[in-house]
Amino acid sequence: MNFKRKGIMLVIASPSGAGKTSITRKLLACDNNLSMSVSLTTRPMRKGEIDGIDYHFRSIDEFNQMRDDGELLEWAKVHDNYYATPKAQVDEMIKNGKDVVFDIDYQGTQQLYEQCRSDMVTIFILPPSIKELHSRLKGRALDSDEVIARRLKNAKIEIDHWAEYDFVLVNDDLEKTIAKTTKILEVARLSRIRQTNLSGFIKQLQNEIDEL
Amino acid sequence: MNFKRKGIMLVIASPSGAGKTSITRKLLACDNNLSMSVSLTTRPMRKGEIDGIDYHFRSIDEFNQMRDDGELLEWAKVHDNYYATPKAQVDEMIKNGKDVVFDIDYQGTQQLYEQCRSDMVTIFILPPSIKELHSRLKGRALDSDEVIARRLKNAKIEIDHWAEYDFVLVNDDLEKTIAKTTKILEVARLSRIRQTNLSGFIKQLQNEIDEL
Repeated sequence: MNFKRKGIMLVIASPSGAGKTSITRKLLACDNNLSMSVSLTTRPMRKGEIDGIDYHFRSIDEFNQMRDDGELLEWAKVHDNYYATPKAQVDEMIKNGKDVVFDIDYQGTQQLYEQCRSDMVTIFILPPSIKELHSRLKGRALDSDEVIARRLKNAKIEIDHWAEYDFVLVNDDLEKTIAKTTKILEVARLSRIRQTNLSGFIKQLQNEIDEL
Repeated sequence: MNFKRKGIMLVIASPSGAGKTSITRKLLACDNNLSMSVSLTTRPMRKGEIDGIDYHFRSIDEFNQMRDDGELLEWAKVHDNYYATPKAQVDEMIKNGKDVVFDIDYQGTQQLYEQCRSDMVTIFILPPSIKELHSRLKGRALDSDEVIARRLKNAKIEIDHWAEYDFVLVNDDLEKTIAKTTKILEVARLSRIRQTNLSGFIKQLQNEIDEL
């Protein structure tokens, strides 16, 4: 028997290179009830990007207005551009039992905690070692040595916030980490605090007892 | 990669006849790390019962002494006899990463919450309907009509406390309910608050970054 429930705000965070993208991609591919949160950004649209799919592209004025009106759940400035999570779309999905996954760092997570703690489940993914992380970053051949050095420096800061997450998983086996993440999501869906019409069912049972 | 962790105090509660015993028995049979909490009782030992296995059989004086010394996690009086959970054995198991399942009612659960909330995971099992519950109780042929009527009256009181549990599962399919319960236990084992040496691993990662 399944009851109506609220959706889950699933945060998967990790230092760059620890496997977050692979895990999130797999979850999204296997789970029809889960979708990626679409961020708002003030940076220019790149070729091939679609407004509302890749990002909600907005002007700085629009961003400022939304922030001042409390319409953003979290925001951050990265290299002169703003990134944010619009509140309305997330609220709507959670209310309708749709689960949303967020790709945000510890500062974004902290901002979400302030407004939505009981809707959130947060997972921090660690690499098995920095040697392994370093070789994954080099193996991707995406970044210069300088960028990799900056990523490792950021990794240290991110890792320092491990204790703010509900789960900390060491990704030494991608398939196992995906399986664990899937189970965490499944169990979060069963949680009593997310059920929205259990009390009606309880009343029905109690009436049945009275009528015996 | 697995870390040392604290054990879990797993409470599975339900009105009589909703399937708790079948679920608990199956979990215990399939999971070597899980064992049943052995209660203390002041009632006389019955033929075939073994002290320390079925119950810890104690005199009323011994019970009173333990209760006054704070050595009991919870206790209840049922038909002139006392039943209780000794604190020392549970503490030892939790410390050593062993999970313990408790067969207690909402009042026992409330007492455990006062002392051990963060170690606990609590599941309340509901029948799909009272008609179903009634027919299960009659089908067992264990109880007189009078006893069944009392069990149903008690069921109403137990059910009234549904909102005090972490999970509320409707047992309309025993295998599915067992699978859900198993997953809840597996995910509880992954929870960050139960890991006891993650901070050491984090320090190791951060040292590795510093040494690069």
